[in-house]
Amino acid sequence: MDDLLISRRDLDFLLYDWLDVTSLTRRPRYADHDRDTFDAVLDLSESIATRHFAPHNKKNDAEEPRFDGERVHVIPEVAAALRVFTEAGLIGAAMDHEVGGQQLPAVVANACQLWFQAANVGTAAYPFLTVGNANLLLAHGSKEQIDTYVRPMVEGRFFGTMCLSEPQAGSSLADITTRAVPAADGTYRITGTKTWISGGDHELSENIVHLVLAKIPGGPAGVKGISLFIVPKFLVGPDGTVGERNDVVTAGLNHKMGYRGTTNALLNFGEGVHRPGGEPGAVGHLVGEAHHGLAYMFHMMNEARIGVGQSATALGYTGYLHALDYARTRPQGRPLTARDPGSPQVPIIEHPDVRRMLLAQKSYVEGALALGLYCSRLLDEERTGASTADRDRARLLLDVLTPIAKSWPAQWCLAANDLAIQVHGGYGYTREYDVEQFYRDNRLNAIHEGTHGIQALDLLGRKVTMDGGAGLALLVETLRATAYRASATGGEAAELAARLLRSVDRIERTTARLWSTGDPAAALANASAYLEAVGHVVLAWIWLEQFLALGKGDDSFRQGKRQAARYFFRVELPRTEPQFDLLDSLDRTAGECHPDWF
Amino acid sequence: MDDLLISRRDLDFLLYDWLDVTSLTRRPRYADHDRDTFDAVLDLSESIATRHFAPHNKKNDAEEPRFDGERVHVIPEVAAALRVFTEAGLIGAAMDHEVGGQQLPAVVANACQLWFQAANVGTAAYPFLTVGNANLLLAHGSKEQIDTYVRPMVEGRFFGTMCLSEPQAGSSLADITTRAVPAADGTYRITGTKTWISGGDHELSENIVHLVLAKIPGGPAGVKGISLFIVPKFLVGPDGTVGERNDVVTAGLNHKMGYRGTTNALLNFGEGVHRPGGEPGAVGHLVGEAHHGLAYMFHMMNEARIGVGQSATALGYTGYLHALDYARTRPQGRPLTARDPGSPQVPIIEHPDVRRMLLAQKSYVEGALALGLYCSRLLDEERTGASTADRDRARLLLDVLTPIAKSWPAQWCLAANDLAIQVHGGYGYTREYDVEQFYRDNRLNAIHEGTHGIQALDLLGRKVTMDGGAGLALLVETLRATAYRASATGGEAAELAARLLRSVDRIERTTARLWSTGDPAAALANASAYLEAVGHVVLAWIWLEQFLALGKGDDSFRQGKRQAARYFFRVELPRTEPQFDLLDSLDRTAGECHPDWF
Repeated sequence: MDDLLISRRDLDFLLYDWLDVTSLTRRPRYADHDRDTFDAVLDLSESIATRHFAPHNKKNDAEEPRFDGERVHVIPEVAAALRVFTEAGLIGAAMDHEVGGQQLPAVVANACQLWFQAANVGTAAYPFLTVGNANLLLAHGSKEQIDTYVRPMVEGRFFGTMCLSEPQAGSSLADITTRAVPAADGTYRITGTKTWISGGDHELSENIVHLVLAKIPGGPAGVKGISLFIVPKFLVGPDGTVGERNDVVTAGLNHKMGYRGTTNALLNFGEGVHRPGGEPGAVGHLVGEAHHGLAYMFHMMNEARIGVGQSATALGYTGYLHALDYARTRPQGRPLTARDPGSPQVPIIEHPDVRRMLLAQKSYVEGALALGLYCSRLLDEERTGASTADRDRARLLLDVLTPIAKSWPAQWCLAANDLAIQVHGGYGYTREYDVEQFYRDNRLNAIHEGTHGIQALDLLGRKVTMDGGAGLALLVETLRATAYRASATGGEAAELAARLLRSVDRIERTTARLWSTGDPAAALANASAYLEAVGHVVLAWIWLEQFLALGKGDDSFRQGKRQAARYFFRVELPRTEPQFDLLDSLDRTAGECHPDWF
Repeated sequence: MDDLLISRRDLDFLLYDWLDVTSLTRRPRYADHDRDTFDAVLDLSESIATRHFAPHNKKNDAEEPRFDGERVHVIPEVAAALRVFTEAGLIGAAMDHEVGGQQLPAVVANACQLWFQAANVGTAAYPFLTVGNANLLLAHGSKEQIDTYVRPMVEGRFFGTMCLSEPQAGSSLADITTRAVPAADGTYRITGTKTWISGGDHELSENIVHLVLAKIPGGPAGVKGISLFIVPKFLVGPDGTVGERNDVVTAGLNHKMGYRGTTNALLNFGEGVHRPGGEPGAVGHLVGEAHHGLAYMFHMMNEARIGVGQSATALGYTGYLHALDYARTRPQGRPLTARDPGSPQVPIIEHPDVRRMLLAQKSYVEGALALGLYCSRLLDEERTGASTADRDRARLLLDVLTPIAKSWPAQWCLAANDLAIQVHGGYGYTREYDVEQFYRDNRLNAIHEGTHGIQALDLLGRKVTMDGGAGLALLVETLRATAYRASATGGEAAELAARLLRSVDRIERTTARLWSTGDPAAALANASAYLEAVGHVVLAWIWLEQFLALGKGDDSFRQGKRQAARYFFRVELPRTEPQFDLLDSLDRTAGECHPDWF
């Protein structure tokens, strides 16, 4: 099982040979670390994921959490695995020493996460939501809030959630109706209903810390009137003791296509089932300033979206390794050239179409992994870059890349899971094998944290235009810099560079043409095609980056990487041409289809 | 529910306005029919599907068949629905009056099937497998076999299966090891294991008629030594009475990603659990001549593969109608131009990206439906065409189109199901809504009856080259004939025709280039890309056919069809250009990737 999660060889190549992660240890924040400590935490993660997460992945899917009207029941393996995880200090992997964290670079901490996401995404979701919650409070909470809620989260005693959506307000957060009324004691009383709350209820931890978006009556309309509150399941005393039940009540669980191991709840706040302190409403603590809730939430959005992309990558990656293993061991059929029906059957990896499906998967999952780690490396740069200019530059590039780092793996590593099923033939369609679950689990990633459509609007409508087009300029400059380096290298790298440069030109031209309309509706009509096309060009760049980082040498690892790069440039990159053509034509076919015509 | 299965308006347009199905009633075979009898059986099918099949579709998925070690348990709604179905005479819809059938044209009978496939594909599979089984025996069985097995099937008393695959022999039927040893009484004794047997065990009928591929010892090696046998679950006496248990024993059920309502069994033949007549081995009756089994099976392959494509179409179609219904009724967000956050939310169909996802679905599912019915119409032509030349021509065109009619809907109507999930947002990912099940059910269609990879080899390796390229010639001639007609019409039709003609030229050029290599391995290296590219061109042709058949008029139905046609030509057809380019380059990137390099 251990070699079916993520390739450690690939991870080492990307972290050390390509991204030169050890160089980060020269920065003050990471001065306590060296390659040995990085390797140790990666080893530990692989080991815990393999021994404690992977074994109950299927059971977590088959025996999903159950709500008996009062309590939520989760199979016991989940709590056992999370105990090992939290005791290893992995919740605080990237957090400051000061709050009990290991202060690892984000790129190393995120690489560690991959093992858990590949092994058991349902169980892994609990600590990852907790990390996101804690990071938000570390950035915007008060000292007291950090002491009361974050420290127990780092210790694994409390888990966290994010409560954004409501039944009438999913993508449209402007329309939330959850109310927060100030109480005499400085807290707020929260009433409303939140849905799609992952980790929303369970008994895996002593407490659950909900971060809830709500509106304080009298505030501005729309998103500008949204505030952020801490609403714990159990109230916490000044001394940190877990006390009275807060009025947060589970109304039911959502039963999903995949990701079944993570409870997903509909929560009622302030229904009056419990009356903390004898008063109605759930007790909430304002985070930061009133009406700034969405900004705080969005501050964490890059990390959250990169995390979703990484989850898609991990599922695609383990699916690929499963398909590869099957293809190497399943005998079926004979080469086209075999004439003797009595000759032995060959492993299906010998068939060209199977090899095509494997190489496509390899190009998707290894490309997505590299992109995700690159973005995580930018998080470190944003935090510890030598100069303000360096840090700003990293932030800007990360802003532009985020919708792609979220959506591209969600689309193409899902496609990899689909191919993994196909490689398995009829067996891939059964629940006895693992790949159909990977597909079902992965299908969520194109939906949560902003659908593809939302990411497309973010990229074309906001990221490439912001700061007078500085985001786009930095993106194309970055891509071209790699291409120029490859051109200078000569040979095959120069050939790939030439192709990449043509595609980068198209990004520039097409973006200019779209916005030359002066009409946002016209510019954004095919935003999804734009996201897909730019995404594919970015991945071609990532493959060229890897190609260059391989250096010389003809071992199997390098040969395989090079072949995947070739595949991406020859088969995948050309897909963007008709997409750019469509965008250039300012096509409105879909928009002009009247709702009655369907 | 009834208007969420298949659009009757669309079906009427395709059957009557486009394919002129009523003209078939002028042929002797269908002389008893007229438009009223066609409409009546379509009405009846819609009504039974809506009232008896759709209501238990989700239950059939959630409570899949269970094997207790001896018997297979299926929820009672399945038997009840099938009783209504068989009592309505729908098993024999297309069969001869002589055996108790209704002698309807295949195109009408297949249109009827769509309602059941859309309503509940798990329950619908039992009678459809039975029809396939009966048709094979009608074509190749003896009079006695027809009387003994087919008549009870038409009456709905016996159900049928096809037993091809074995654990070590799926796509590679040459490698089956099930043995058939002649017995003194003229029967054969069968021993071996078959897997993936849909409808392989249940108590929904008095008997199950297995059609089993097996090898008679001493026969030729490979596929030339395969014979076909009837192996009933219970032996049938000369007077038709169902008697002693034959030695066919269920070893277990396969638990699948979708299609869960249909039992799928691993069957052991001749294990000695039962000893019919006191002898070892399951009793089998040879169908036709020894060693011709695979030819008989392949004789029915076109129909079976068109049926798979149609099943994919029905699932894609109902998913589209569900997504459309949701998009029209779910309020979320505001138009880009709305500046007031207090303005009411709009139905999501108002958002361009949602409309794009709906129009894409419409172009896939209505295109697939039209292609499937066109192929069914060719089945009628093959059977009742005026001259031998007409019939041969229909058969040849059907031969070429079959891999596309199977694979294209399996790929693109599955893509439609994926988009239907996406339109539903988070709700689409829950089992409370229907679309995730449609996706899971539909995922099988790219695998069974020959995977995409197999269909691609069939199209490029066999169909376009057979008879000295006559298949390809007829295909391009057919596509061009429509384009010339559209050119003569002028206006927008002529514009679409010009684009289609360019793509048809590419098919011709690329096919010639591939086979000019003289090296099958080089020609077939990217057979999947060929299947996809030719498939998309064929669908563009199907959309142009529909465009022409709409005639004048600006009602919503016609406007919608025209817009879907435009969408297909503007967004979908251009996807084929990089595929043809790849094929023309004789790319071998995947094939040259050494197995060790992955």
